Amino acid sequence: MTAVTVAELAEFVDGRCVGDGSVRIEDVADLRQAGPTDIGFVRDLRFAALVGQSRAGAVIVESALDVRMPQIVVARPDVAFARIGLRFHPVPTATEHDLHPTADVASDAQLEMPVALGPHVSVGRSAKIGRGTLCGAGVVIGEGARIGRDCTLFPRAVVYPGTVIGDRVILHAGAVVGSDGFGYARDGERWVKIPQIGHVVIEDDVEIGANATIDRATLGITRIGRGSKIDNLVHVGHNCTIGEDCAMAGFSALAGSTHIGDRVSMGGHVVSAGHLKVANDARIGGNSVLYGDVREPGEYLGYPLQPKSRWARTLHVLGRLPELLAEVRQLRQSRGSNSRDDHPAADV
Amino acid sequence: MTAVTVAELAEFVDGRCVGDGSVRIEDVADLRQAGPTDIGFVRDLRFAALVGQSRAGAVIVESALDVRMPQIVVARPDVAFARIGLRFHPVPTATEHDLHPTADVASDAQLEMPVALGPHVSVGRSAKIGRGTLCGAGVVIGEGARIGRDCTLFPRAVVYPGTVIGDRVILHAGAVVGSDGFGYARDGERWVKIPQIGHVVIEDDVEIGANATIDRATLGITRIGRGSKIDNLVHVGHNCTIGEDCAMAGFSALAGSTHIGDRVSMGGHVVSAGHLKVANDARIGGNSVLYGDVREPGEYLGYPLQPKSRWARTLHVLGRLPELLAEVRQLRQSRGSNSRDDHPAADV
Amino acid sequence: MTAVTVAELAEFVDGRCVGDGSVRIEDVADLRQAGPTDIGFVRDLRFAALVGQSRAGAVIVESALDVRMPQIVVARPDVAFARIGLRFHPVPTATEHDLHPTADVASDAQLEMPVALGPHVSVGRSAKIGRGTLCGAGVVIGEGARIGRDCTLFPRAVVYPGTVIGDRVILHAGAVVGSDGFGYARDGERWVKIPQIGHVVIEDDVEIGANATIDRATLGITRIGRGSKIDNLVHVGHNCTIGEDCAMAGFSALAGSTHIGDRVSMGGHVVSAGHLKVANDARIGGNSVLYGDVREPGEYLGYPLQPKSRWARTLHVLGRLPELLAEVRQLRQSRGSNSRDDHPAADV
Repeated sequence: MTAVTVAELAEFVDGRCVGDGSVRIEDVADLRQAGPTDIGFVRDLRFAALVGQSRAGAVIVESALDVRMPQIVVARPDVAFARIGLRFHPVPTATEHDLHPTADVASDAQLEMPVALGPHVSVGRSAKIGRGTLCGAGVVIGEGARIGRDCTLFPRAVVYPGTVIGDRVILHAGAVVGSDGFGYARDGERWVKIPQIGHVVIEDDVEIGANATIDRATLGITRIGRGSKIDNLVHVGHNCTIGEDCAMAGFSALAGSTHIGDRVSMGGHVVSAGHLKVANDARIGGNSVLYGDVREPGEYLGYPLQPKSRWARTLHVLGRLPELLAEVRQLRQSRGSNSRDDHPAADV
Repeated sequence: MTAVTVAELAEFVDGRCVGDGSVRIEDVADLRQAGPTDIGFVRDLRFAALVGQSRAGAVIVESALDVRMPQIVVARPDVAFARIGLRFHPVPTATEHDLHPTADVASDAQLEMPVALGPHVSVGRSAKIGRGTLCGAGVVIGEGARIGRDCTLFPRAVVYPGTVIGDRVILHAGAVVGSDGFGYARDGERWVKIPQIGHVVIEDDVEIGANATIDRATLGITRIGRGSKIDNLVHVGHNCTIGEDCAMAGFSALAGSTHIGDRVSMGGHVVSAGHLKVANDARIGGNSVLYGDVREPGEYLGYPLQPKSRWARTLHVLGRLPELLAEVRQLRQSRGSNSRDDHPAADV
Repeated sequence: MTAVTVAELAEFVDGRCVGDGSVRIEDVADLRQAGPTDIGFVRDLRFAALVGQSRAGAVIVESALDVRMPQIVVARPDVAFARIGLRFHPVPTATEHDLHPTADVASDAQLEMPVALGPHVSVGRSAKIGRGTLCGAGVVIGEGARIGRDCTLFPRAVVYPGTVIGDRVILHAGAVVGSDGFGYARDGERWVKIPQIGHVVIEDDVEIGANATIDRATLGITRIGRGSKIDNLVHVGHNCTIGEDCAMAGFSALAGSTHIGDRVSMGGHVVSAGHLKVANDARIGGNSVLYGDVREPGEYLGYPLQPKSRWARTLHVLGRLPELLAEVRQLRQSRGSNSRDDHPAADV
């Protein structure tokens, strides 16, 4: 790691340096584990006490604290910490043209120098890879696929033929982009495969997690919009579109033709039934199941999906169903002693 | 693409050609994007208006329309469209014997010519691969595995030792067939691994999605029946059996010893508790959880699984639990003013 | 398989041999399929009748049966069967130093002889691999990773840089250990990646299933404790810790910073919301969703998670919600005829 002064880092994140700006910083760390060459941060002032107990060389804060430790004051300490962290730990890309001797590159593939291909990488016919892109061990780029610049494909990521990937895209290990959508026509008792002849487009600055799968469209395009982030073990079905700057946490699935707007966030284990739309700026909590469109921005949760505050009440009742049943039984009994109705509507 | 006339395509799908059968077709397409060398289809007559607006060269329909565009009239336009699509875009198989120089093939493996092995493929001892089978980059065929004819194994698919795979099977990228079942005996506080010494049998015409996992049996066989289709990120536990012509959509899981009949369809995100049976011709909707046998054909849905129409009502009530609670509270209150019961059965 | 006598096997599992101890056994099998050189077992005496009908050479039982078949009597027949099974079918490890010529090993990687590396394996700079460890075809060991002794990495497992793995660890095909956690800071409309600079530690005797993913910590360590077993398609988020001797069945996910105690078992399809703790010895049934801490050992189930017996009642009511609604409606109607309240609290 190259050391850099607190003052330089403050400038790097458009922050204000308070205290000794000449202190040299080599890494980011949690304040509780930080040493004198580390910089930490406090998300907000509730955690300010951590600073006094820390051995960190500097700290990023929202507003200046009355401590001796050098500080960088910025509106968003978490963002500044992420930026500084990335400066010390950049996502690996290709800085020199370096094709491992075991990499197999089709003679008509076009690599824009520099590109780094690790061991046992395979690049298919007519594929294009932009400069700065690094493919880890065993990555497979299919025929005619186009990968942009400064991308990072971790080991064993597979890009099917014809897929188009933008710049600065990260694919984690085992991610599969462009596999066939799940489409069959039923012919009597048998399934006839509907050829999946569309493609996948992954726009700039997208990150896709380990062992996630993004299916190609039946006809047309499955699209992941610029800046969207998809976590591990997520399935995106054929012909889905995800807008820009979305975040989709792990272990989730979108059935075919789900259309997600911009800036939509989804917690983990969210499942969508397909053929539906989610409005821009919707925030969908974890463990939700979507059966219909989400028409307005806002916070949503539940199964079936509801406005979040409503689901909290539903969940409360769900947790008390045995008591609710007992109550209704008692009401029925007490009614029985008041009135002469018979034949209860149901035997609960 | 080789062009073919509408008349020839009509014959290919056992349909009737209406209009100019000499028009040459080169591809299938969505009617809205189709050009003059494309053929499209309308699923049913509700969409007939699309035909008038389309630039397609021909269309597949259920019954002849009063339009100038050449038509192929068949009972099942979707099936015909799939068949014609596959004719233009066949699943890639091996037409010439072509072993990539980086492929590693055990000396006693038996390849029935022609077989195509891509870069960095590994074929273990005593494995057999039938003619016409294509293994994409990095596919691993374990010791003693048998792969049938005309199969397509996409990059990085892994077939564990001893697995038996039929003809025309498709494994998508990252699919794993034959991994150990999850079985341990508890010895005090420790888990002792139960060796998983059974196998997996994948019958003819099965397709398995990207990053899906099919575990070998503890003892005996995990079996996927002829013609069944399994989507991405599906887990099939040890000793499961899936019958013929089933379809299992993505992001689903069958715990060990689940036995699925023939022609069963499952929507996405269906989970089965294991050690249970599902009858032939059951149709299980997405997001269902199976805790017990499904004894009759029919449509099912829900958590726990119920006949579909019943679950629709349950879901309706589930969505209105807060109102139900409020109602019961009011009933209790009103009862309180009528009678002198105390000690409500429960504090809801 | 090397044959071994029943008497020797009895000694191997600290059991008592009853009957002819000289019978030679070559394999384990299900009693119903077993032949004269196989040994089977009965889990408990309810299944004793199976023994009389079996052609097995010997059987493992809890207490001696009045049969002619040689028996091994032990307190835990299932554990003894697993141990004997593993003796006949040991998990493959390296017995000879054998680096496949296509394996790519960094010049400064340290391999403690014997190590077996299959075709197209990649071992990064400064990585260390302990003696007895076997890496199947296409395994990738990242820079600086440390793998212990007698481990088995099945084909295509990926170990990210810096990961630490203990002894006798099994990674199944496609498992990914050390991928980036899902962490971003929101900067206006854009997501800024929070560098994931922690690591993963996998302790001794852990087994991880096919295509499972274990994310590295943001800062610090994601840890899987000694002896814990994780099934296929499980996602473990960044900074999670799993204690010792846990079992986590397939198709499950722990969101970031979930802390699981020792000897916790989880059924399949369990999802945890993250930032919570689960007490030692908790047993969590399948299809459960954790939103909060589990503070006591015991059996739990449900969504949201509840003590198991309570959830059984909840599930019963859940299955009868339509009847419950009908009942409440009838009560409301009957109340209407008794009292003069209007404006029902809700329109259910």
